[in-house]
Amino acid sequence: MTPVLIAGEWVSANAKRGFRAHDPKTSEPIGDEFPVSDWSDCDAALSAAVGAAEALEACSGDQIASFLDAYAGGLAGNAEAICRQAEEETALPYQPRLADVEMPRTVNQLRLAAEAARVGAWRAPVVDAAANIRSCYGPLGPVFVLGPNNFPLAFNAVSGGDFAAAIATGNPVIAKAHPAHPATTRLLAQAAQAAAAEAGLPAASVQLLYGVENEHGLRMAADPRLAAVAFTGSRPAGLALKAAADAVGKPIYLEMSSVNPVFFLPGAVAERRDALIEELAGSCLMAAGQFCTCPNLFVLHAGDDAEAVLQGVQDRFQQRPAGALFAEAVVRGLASSIASLKAAGAEVACGGAEAGDAGFRFQNTLLKTTGDAFLANPAALQTEAFGPVSLAVVVRDGEQAVQVARHIEGSLTGSIYSSTQGDDDALALRLQQTLRRRVGRLINDKMPTGVAVSPAMNHGGPFPATGNPGFTAVGIPASLRRFAKLDCYDNVRPARLPACLAD
Amino acid sequence: MTPVLIAGEWVSANAKRGFRAHDPKTSEPIGDEFPVSDWSDCDAALSAAVGAAEALEACSGDQIASFLDAYAGGLAGNAEAICRQAEEETALPYQPRLADVEMPRTVNQLRLAAEAARVGAWRAPVVDAAANIRSCYGPLGPVFVLGPNNFPLAFNAVSGGDFAAAIATGNPVIAKAHPAHPATTRLLAQAAQAAAAEAGLPAASVQLLYGVENEHGLRMAADPRLAAVAFTGSRPAGLALKAAADAVGKPIYLEMSSVNPVFFLPGAVAERRDALIEELAGSCLMAAGQFCTCPNLFVLHAGDDAEAVLQGVQDRFQQRPAGALFAEAVVRGLASSIASLKAAGAEVACGGAEAGDAGFRFQNTLLKTTGDAFLANPAALQTEAFGPVSLAVVVRDGEQAVQVARHIEGSLTGSIYSSTQGDDDALALRLQQTLRRRVGRLINDKMPTGVAVSPAMNHGGPFPATGNPGFTAVGIPASLRRFAKLDCYDNVRPARLPACLAD
Repeated sequence: MTPVLIAGEWVSANAKRGFRAHDPKTSEPIGDEFPVSDWSDCDAALSAAVGAAEALEACSGDQIASFLDAYAGGLAGNAEAICRQAEEETALPYQPRLADVEMPRTVNQLRLAAEAARVGAWRAPVVDAAANIRSCYGPLGPVFVLGPNNFPLAFNAVSGGDFAAAIATGNPVIAKAHPAHPATTRLLAQAAQAAAAEAGLPAASVQLLYGVENEHGLRMAADPRLAAVAFTGSRPAGLALKAAADAVGKPIYLEMSSVNPVFFLPGAVAERRDALIEELAGSCLMAAGQFCTCPNLFVLHAGDDAEAVLQGVQDRFQQRPAGALFAEAVVRGLASSIASLKAAGAEVACGGAEAGDAGFRFQNTLLKTTGDAFLANPAALQTEAFGPVSLAVVVRDGEQAVQVARHIEGSLTGSIYSSTQGDDDALALRLQQTLRRRVGRLINDKMPTGVAVSPAMNHGGPFPATGNPGFTAVGIPASLRRFAKLDCYDNVRPARLPACLAD
Repeated sequence: MTPVLIAGEWVSANAKRGFRAHDPKTSEPIGDEFPVSDWSDCDAALSAAVGAAEALEACSGDQIASFLDAYAGGLAGNAEAICRQAEEETALPYQPRLADVEMPRTVNQLRLAAEAARVGAWRAPVVDAAANIRSCYGPLGPVFVLGPNNFPLAFNAVSGGDFAAAIATGNPVIAKAHPAHPATTRLLAQAAQAAAAEAGLPAASVQLLYGVENEHGLRMAADPRLAAVAFTGSRPAGLALKAAADAVGKPIYLEMSSVNPVFFLPGAVAERRDALIEELAGSCLMAAGQFCTCPNLFVLHAGDDAEAVLQGVQDRFQQRPAGALFAEAVVRGLASSIASLKAAGAEVACGGAEAGDAGFRFQNTLLKTTGDAFLANPAALQTEAFGPVSLAVVVRDGEQAVQVARHIEGSLTGSIYSSTQGDDDALALRLQQTLRRRVGRLINDKMPTGVAVSPAMNHGGPFPATGNPGFTAVGIPASLRRFAKLDCYDNVRPARLPACLAD
């Protein structure tokens, strides 16, 4: 079985069982067998991480930046092989997605994190010379990062945004690969290990397990040697980890499911109906809907325009082939979610079942309901459905649109499309005021998919989209703050102060 | 029964029972009867707070600042009456404590919060004009603030640091008075209400309940209308609220118990033994030990010097009178804690029982144990003991001191006293590296009591001292960040942007 990376060495895993990736296009198992580690591997990684955390404190920001830059360079230099491997395991296209967008984004994030480590602004030093009290942010300690299925590079536990933010703030990472793309993760980790050695980082700064039993994942989250957890994935898994971490007061940063509502106001639809249909269908079906910012719910005002939009979206959903999904679990999850949505009163306009073709596929699915029905059962009608599924809520009027907005649960994004001529402005403002409390990123006249790596980005939002609406998972340097603690030095002798707090 | 402040009006409480304060010096009930509100009062306050949160969004930082300044002025103008009332309810001395220190600190905090609201730096605007993405921090929504017994003014739920930080960031506060000083809290709330009316703040920006049943407090913490909770007090109460808030993903900021270890290194003791004895005894017994930063544990290196320090501290503990404690519950809590500490192996050097005098009093209590015994049972030997109690841990050598430091649980502070001649430097550095991960404020050659209101202050630390080591409860503007969420605006039309994000 494939070795795991513990304390700087690729070692045989202690594992009672293994797993293999699958080709999403055929659903056939592919590649090597990877281990589901026993607790002894987790335990060894945790102990090694404690030592690495202490050793990393002696490393300068420049040294950490050298590692991140070397890692970025290593990925760029091996981009083709990594992207080909990712394509095989995820069925995401080599081009235009993996090689043209996701790999450059991943390399860019690592370089931005390097720059943040070098400049050190995240430490935010404050010196009160009169009182001789000083403070700055400092590293938190070992971070357990669990990556999702849908970004094999840019959110991978061993190369993505959480990894980069945790390392840039001087914390060792124990990465848990997503089981849908273990061979891709191995290639990334090999590059990380080489870069760590080149930069002289402590050996256990980057560790990798391919799989752990659920109970051991929860035990790791609660282990006193661990300082924090970062998780991107489904709500049930996120909530289980959160409960384990919360019980022992450990910080956990989650990015879970999000319904990402899109409100189409009447003036916008009257003005540019066909363009909106195209934008919406494109956003819903991109990567087979497997984005955290996929618009899983949209709101139309009842009338002929609404019917035309529904018909246009339905046509496109039916015309376009069912994309390959990352795993059998995604197909099963969709079947279960759609059963729940139907039980809650959603009607199936098209799709609603597994696609008959080879591989992991589900029909592009358009659901619809009325504003009245939504308001009678808002929680069940926001059931997580990760994939090519969207629910149209047809409201009676603007007042009912605002009521729907009031019942949207915490979400990463919320979009408002309004007339360019000002016809919808009063309603748009009311919706904005209501949505502002419910979403992390408020959007105008644009779909939520496409999360720019910008210092102004917030890829976060109120629970249950995340665990705390004050933090973002994307955007450097803001995302670094999650992995820092506030260190105050009161009357501490000058020779014992960190460099950033010297007079 | 005394009316409560809901939606801007003093109204009759819905309460099945009431309570009265007690004079700590006599243990006799004093003053008016105050209500323990039923759920209907909580419900009314929550609903009013939702409306206030929306209305506060339309208020400028200047307007909020006007309120905070007017409130500060109102307190300063009525300082004598408020401090006399607080003295009666808490037995803290009018002078030098309440009138000379705590009231000026409270007024100062409100003015600093006003300045922070006016300047608005807490919003930290980021504008990415090229991508047309912008973000800033914005208000979170209604905050439930529960104040402690030990600072009737500066940490009062309706006038203290959490209140000031929540309001300065545009959030309405529902304050829950501490039952040990309800009449003081009433005077403060009257001044707050007058200032809110003067500044034209929404009526429900400041609301006050004197008491709620425990089950209703937990229900409030979980209520979807509430955005966050801020609690200062005992660990059991804090953990119960935390569990309720965590279960629904609601941010909660806690400041709970803390052992605040003080390490006396051999060179420091050899050099200035008598001064250290005086400092330690003073810090332990100030306000009868009822500070969150009271040094409840100190470490000495075995030998004649340690014996002399122990004797000196014991002499002072025995000479000084047992101070009045805030409530019967504090006396009971100490008896229970000391029983636990004794069961865990601590020996009583002096004190250990209720004082025979009138009022709520407990003997000044010095406990001692060895490093070996501590390391055999570190959790039980850090049992919370809120009052005039400290445990001496006599270690064999520096190596054992470091081991003790490794077993200190998350604490607000950690102090290291070392020789001024450099004799202890190597050990001091090792202890610092170990303590840095366990305490929010690292201190040299100074006792932890006395928390300066400085922008560089961290009154926070790792769990269980607080719920997240990235935040501070004292220090403006840093403490404001707890009550803000990150609001991103992506492609939002210029007229709909908040002022701080305009081009």
